[in-house]
Amino acid sequence: MRAVVLYEPGRAEVIDRADPVPGRGDVIVEVSGAGLCGTDVHIFEGLFPPTPYPIVPGHEFAGRVVAVGAEVDGLDEGEFAAADCTLTCGRCRYCRSGRYNLCLGWGAIGDTVDGAFAEYVSVPAVNVFRWPEHLPESWTPLTEPLACVVRGAERLGSVAGISVLVVGGGVIGALAGKLMRASGATRVDLCERGEVRRTRAADWADTTFDDVARTDEASYEAVVDATGSIAAIEAGIARLAPGGRYLLLGVAPADAVAGFSPYELFKRELTLLGSMSKRYSFQPALDLLHRGAIDLHSLVDQPLPLESYVDAVERVARGEGMKTVLAPDAG
Amino acid sequence: MRAVVLYEPGRAEVIDRADPVPGRGDVIVEVSGAGLCGTDVHIFEGLFPPTPYPIVPGHEFAGRVVAVGAEVDGLDEGEFAAADCTLTCGRCRYCRSGRYNLCLGWGAIGDTVDGAFAEYVSVPAVNVFRWPEHLPESWTPLTEPLACVVRGAERLGSVAGISVLVVGGGVIGALAGKLMRASGATRVDLCERGEVRRTRAADWADTTFDDVARTDEASYEAVVDATGSIAAIEAGIARLAPGGRYLLLGVAPADAVAGFSPYELFKRELTLLGSMSKRYSFQPALDLLHRGAIDLHSLVDQPLPLESYVDAVERVARGEGMKTVLAPDAG
Amino acid sequence: MRAVVLYEPGRAEVIDRADPVPGRGDVIVEVSGAGLCGTDVHIFEGLFPPTPYPIVPGHEFAGRVVAVGAEVDGLDEGEFAAADCTLTCGRCRYCRSGRYNLCLGWGAIGDTVDGAFAEYVSVPAVNVFRWPEHLPESWTPLTEPLACVVRGAERLGSVAGISVLVVGGGVIGALAGKLMRASGATRVDLCERGEVRRTRAADWADTTFDDVARTDEASYEAVVDATGSIAAIEAGIARLAPGGRYLLLGVAPADAVAGFSPYELFKRELTLLGSMSKRYSFQPALDLLHRGAIDLHSLVDQPLPLESYVDAVERVARGEGMKTVLAPDAG
Amino acid sequence: MRAVVLYEPGRAEVIDRADPVPGRGDVIVEVSGAGLCGTDVHIFEGLFPPTPYPIVPGHEFAGRVVAVGAEVDGLDEGEFAAADCTLTCGRCRYCRSGRYNLCLGWGAIGDTVDGAFAEYVSVPAVNVFRWPEHLPESWTPLTEPLACVVRGAERLGSVAGISVLVVGGGVIGALAGKLMRASGATRVDLCERGEVRRTRAADWADTTFDDVARTDEASYEAVVDATGSIAAIEAGIARLAPGGRYLLLGVAPADAVAGFSPYELFKRELTLLGSMSKRYSFQPALDLLHRGAIDLHSLVDQPLPLESYVDAVERVARGEGMKTVLAPDAG
Ligand SMILES: NC(=O)c1ccc[n+]([C@@H]2O[C@H](COP(=O)([O-])OP(=O)(O)OC[C@H]3O[C@@H](n4cnc5c(N)ncnc54)[C@H](OP(=O)(O)O)[C@@H]3O)[C@@H](O)[C@H]2O)c1
Ligand SMILES: NC(=O)c1ccc[n+]([C@@H]2O[C@H](COP(=O)([O-])OP(=O)(O)OC[C@H]3O[C@@H](n4cnc5c(N)ncnc54)[C@H](OP(=O)(O)O)[C@@H]3O)[C@@H](O)[C@H]2O)c1
Ligand SMILES: NC(=O)c1ccc[n+]([C@@H]2O[C@H](COP(=O)([O-])OP(=O)(O)OC[C@H]3O[C@@H](n4cnc5c(N)ncnc54)[C@H](OP(=O)(O)O)[C@@H]3O)[C@@H](O)[C@H]2O)c1
Ligand SMILES: NC(=O)c1ccc[n+]([C@@H]2O[C@H](COP(=O)([O-])OP(=O)(O)OC[C@H]3O[C@@H](n4cnc5c(N)ncnc54)[C@H](OP(=O)(O)O)[C@@H]3O)[C@@H](O)[C@H]2O)c1
Ligand SMILES: [Zn+2]
Ligand SMILES: [Zn+2]
Ligand SMILES: [Zn+2]
Ligand SMILES: [Zn+2]
Repeated sequence: MRAVVLYEPGRAEVIDRADPVPGRGDVIVEVSGAGLCGTDVHIFEGLFPPTPYPIVPGHEFAGRVVAVGAEVDGLDEGEFAAADCTLTCGRCRYCRSGRYNLCLGWGAIGDTVDGAFAEYVSVPAVNVFRWPEHLPESWTPLTEPLACVVRGAERLGSVAGISVLVVGGGVIGALAGKLMRASGATRVDLCERGEVRRTRAADWADTTFDDVARTDEASYEAVVDATGSIAAIEAGIARLAPGGRYLLLGVAPADAVAGFSPYELFKRELTLLGSMSKRYSFQPALDLLHRGAIDLHSLVDQPLPLESYVDAVERVARGEGMKTVLAPDAG
Repeated sequence: MRAVVLYEPGRAEVIDRADPVPGRGDVIVEVSGAGLCGTDVHIFEGLFPPTPYPIVPGHEFAGRVVAVGAEVDGLDEGEFAAADCTLTCGRCRYCRSGRYNLCLGWGAIGDTVDGAFAEYVSVPAVNVFRWPEHLPESWTPLTEPLACVVRGAERLGSVAGISVLVVGGGVIGALAGKLMRASGATRVDLCERGEVRRTRAADWADTTFDDVARTDEASYEAVVDATGSIAAIEAGIARLAPGGRYLLLGVAPADAVAGFSPYELFKRELTLLGSMSKRYSFQPALDLLHRGAIDLHSLVDQPLPLESYVDAVERVARGEGMKTVLAPDAG
Repeated sequence: MRAVVLYEPGRAEVIDRADPVPGRGDVIVEVSGAGLCGTDVHIFEGLFPPTPYPIVPGHEFAGRVVAVGAEVDGLDEGEFAAADCTLTCGRCRYCRSGRYNLCLGWGAIGDTVDGAFAEYVSVPAVNVFRWPEHLPESWTPLTEPLACVVRGAERLGSVAGISVLVVGGGVIGALAGKLMRASGATRVDLCERGEVRRTRAADWADTTFDDVARTDEASYEAVVDATGSIAAIEAGIARLAPGGRYLLLGVAPADAVAGFSPYELFKRELTLLGSMSKRYSFQPALDLLHRGAIDLHSLVDQPLPLESYVDAVERVARGEGMKTVLAPDAG
Repeated sequence: MRAVVLYEPGRAEVIDRADPVPGRGDVIVEVSGAGLCGTDVHIFEGLFPPTPYPIVPGHEFAGRVVAVGAEVDGLDEGEFAAADCTLTCGRCRYCRSGRYNLCLGWGAIGDTVDGAFAEYVSVPAVNVFRWPEHLPESWTPLTEPLACVVRGAERLGSVAGISVLVVGGGVIGALAGKLMRASGATRVDLCERGEVRRTRAADWADTTFDDVARTDEASYEAVVDATGSIAAIEAGIARLAPGGRYLLLGVAPADAVAGFSPYELFKRELTLLGSMSKRYSFQPALDLLHRGAIDLHSLVDQPLPLESYVDAVERVARGEGMKTVLAPDAG
């Protein structure tokens, strides 16, 4: 099969290599498309510590099941499915308390073992989720980021009847905005610097701003960060009304420090919440799509061939377009 | 002023009596309209124990503030406002824990003191809420029942992404259905016997049934009862899928007993929740209306004159129409 | 090895059979002791539908790891461990939402595959939990029931500062009472018919009653059923004060019906909660023991030899003693 | 009566002035003792903006009811009671949503109107809570701070079975530590610089440290700040284990900024919670005392006469002793 191999940070090639064969509990998925996100940029740059090189990256993917391991039940060849990339140890303190996104032995297909920028990829059967037939296949790479946002929404709690500010209008911000709307928020505004992205938010944002500073201080009952930028985080926290809740989805640099006012945290009884990856949210994400609560049309870009891997990484790094996808049969 | 006086159960008259004058902390509201609900039927029949007779009934109301007590701040004559009828002692164990709907000294304007089936009514200033200008005045009598449903929804918890069955398609069922939709439920079905009411649910129900028995057992993640009927309650509980949550809004007779399977409660880890009146939900109800999350057009009937009080009570008892309203200047 | 084999309901024998060998992901545990509970009575009587016969029963157990499968990491021979008997499919809707106790493919060591009334038992490595060294080995069979009670307590929510009535003073009731105490309940009373058991509750119960009817109606903020008896459940619900929460741990017969007053559920805003087995609560149960929050001395009985299996089942059925345990090396 | 009058920041005197007479809904309390806290230091220094001068300070108090307003029901002369100092508008968005501690018109007896460093003080009847007879009167001034800590604990959520670090061993830290213990935390450690205060924590702290830096990073499931110091807050947040929850009780200077790592907030899924004053927690605080869950002996100091007001303020500012109290009949 053809596969992108990243030999070491910055050095990648599309090569031919042996097709994977399924382990006892695994299935082989013929990849229809695999998305890229900021983690792919970090893996390419050597800034995602758990990654071993060489590796085939690609962790947001779907495709048809073409082979099934000996011990796999209830999953047949021919089925079209989305895959949850998460690999957990099952035995650490966090796995055993159901907080598997905090697993001490965390790994992920495409991040710590070979992934989906390839024609085929091997996946544990438990990571495979039947894709709702009537939905467009082009939406599949958005299931994984949507699952992250669903986890974030669970952390945030009910938004029914309240006003929400989303900061950052990339894929994560857009998914968060759509989910807030679908969960009963009665006002959802967006701060995003890029004009194109503000325009692409027309189907969910009430009002868009190009700068957090243009929104009123202390005026939102919930604020969601989808930037990871320190300036945006500091400004976002200051938008919280008394009793307000802040959800941090954005991933800041590991050594960056943001300032907040402990006096305001106390005085306004604020709540600041981090949310990390997915937790029991892959199936709910599929359900939301299945039942029509969230529409992804505005977030899908034209897929690129595997050969465009480096360009695709750069496109994501520049914040261009929305969900960038590589497809083995594209172009 | 003209007022409906219910001298004793079953004996009412519209008479002329002195206009109320505001106590120090009260305002006088010129009633624009006041709704009826099942409680009004009970009060008419002498089946609502806390009611003293004679009384002017009418507890779901709004109107213009025409006089303001000496110690009232920040509320001016001329303002149009909806009123929360609830009167609490402020000092019992429940009031002091914020559970004021469980107040040991509970009372209500129109239920335990003179109410709004009259041209004017006296209301404590703290019970008066500014009505959002751009909303139709005809919606005002629905604020109170919506506030009850908002409390119920708080009891139920998040419905984002789940399927809900509403049993009973009167005003309460319809408000519950609309609120579930606006809170992100991805499927909301209705069971209601009356064909007219099933039709009036077209703007919120996915599927309607004329009998709970026609829905699948163990298939809804949440079920809301808005009937108070024992048969409907028993059937409704049996619709809960594993992990399901049941919200009882309906008021059953005080001595009626419903059967449930403790084995299923255990095995499916069900949750059964009662919800009683409003709790901090009057303003949220107004906010939901204000922000456009809930539209009440389909629930409003033509107001009737005060003289139609007995007819109106009977109409409600028969389950006719949706929100029945008396307006001093109707007809 | 020697093992109890239950050939069919009611017909058991201790026989010699081949020692188990570990599957790739399994370990072999040399059983130090295995407890019995009501489920063992049902399995013996043929009333636990998922059980296939012949089977080696025994699902509450611990022991030393004596062999380790080829793919097992981080678990060594010689380690003393308690085992969680739960086997789940990992792929059903419930597993994937973290509600694995509701798994559609649920199974358990000792209930649906061979268990621990034997010298050795095979266990998936992920089901094995290191036993805190300084704790008495005699407590090990109580970890599983404690984990069930911890799940129940999670369902119930905070009991800090409130009054709780526990109905039923067997092992489950006693564990629930001890946990309520350790979680800050400021009053914990017990209803239990058996005098011996009331006496054994001296280390945790404030007041004991021999009949629910002797406690005040509507006077407890939380009630926990640990009987499964319909009469006790009905009486228990009636003890709830306004705003009260009811936790059903007891397992009633599958076709039994209990009556409750929907009017009171509404009027007092009650909450009724079922709790089914364990969910992420095995490790927390061990932690509570490890940290000294719960002491099990009063619940441990003298272990019996495997040959006493039928007597032990009958002892449990009669509600005699507290935790009945079979140990291969006993007596 | 004799009363401390603070004419302007820094200038106080004990003078004779007319006894208060009760308004219609008020009672007069003969003060038995009134505590001081950091707010009293700020009021003395002119750093508590809502304070009007001259004022009689004193907001943590109790005493005997000696006169009762015309409209007060169910509260008799002679009763001994603790008072909640909080005065709210009842009509703002926050009051109406039950979040009265965030009231836009917030006031407090002793902070914004005359308080309890006097022989008598006027108090709205709804602010008066019957003191449990069998408890020592010397504990009364601790009810108010305990109510603040109970509110904080509600924000924090269940601590049953987890490890908690309390930072700051003054009255607030000690009350928080005792409450964590009584709520089932299985380990409660204290960081406090002062040796005397570390010693006085012997009845509740497992281990004490003189510096947060001496505790392990990322090792506590919950951390409670009771210092308001920026250094302590920054160090405290860094002690949170993955999934950990941080409760900020300490009041930092209004313009101070603390740094935190957004990456860790995300990666460890942390939760940071501010808690502001009391909310429905005065009665629960009394209940915890009444039922014996919390013992206050170790926190009570010898009361001082009114004439010691300035000394008492300085004592509090220096962090000396535990609860400093002024009593009209002391000395
Ligand atoms: N929590 C999780 O589980 C999870 C999962 C996936 C992704 N993430 C994280 O979520 C964040 C968003 O992901 P993404 O894929 O949507 O990234 P993205 O495409 O980089 O989008 C971020 C957007 O935020 C905008 N932005 C940055 N600073 C801003 C500011 N101060 N004011 C307004 N807009 C600002 C950016 O505009 P410019 O391009 O003009 O700067 C960009 O459009 C990333 O940090 C990512 O790592 C988290
Ligand atoms: N919890 C609270 O705070 C609160 C507040 C307000 C009202 N309520 C209660 O909520 C309930 C509903 O109020 P509402 O004003 O909407 O009353 P309603 O107009 O009487 O509506 C109830 C509807 O339920 C239908 N129904 C009765 N049994 C049924 C069954 N077995 N299957 C299907 N439909 C059935 C009735 O149809 P038919 O007419 O054909 O029987 C009727 O259309 C009442 O019990 C009321 O007292 C509670
Ligand atoms: N939810 C779960 O995950 C879970 C897990 C394990 C067990 N369970 C269930 O929990 C229940 C208790 O288990 P267990 O092992 O403790 O059982 P047990 O030994 O049978 O204890 C039950 C106790 O309740 C007493 N009792 C029965 N009816 C009573 C009444 N009306 N008033 C007062 N006391 C009454 C019994 O006394 P007499 O003997 O005199 O009748 C007996 O002492 C069982 O139903 C069991 O199946 C549930
Ligand atoms: N949230 C609320 O509703 C509420 C209510 C009441 C009070 N408060 C606030 O809670 C805080 C505590 O009140 P309190 O009456 O207990 O105050 P306190 O008597 O000043 O106690 C604070 C303690 O923290 C210690 N401390 C300060 N920095 C420390 C550090 N870096 N490491 C270890 N210990 C440190 C202090 O020791 P040193 O004296 O040696 O510095 C002092 O013993 C105050 O900020 C107060 O304003 C909040
Ligand atoms: Zn793990
Ligand atoms: Zn009350
Ligand atoms: Zn399963
Ligand atoms: Zn207010």
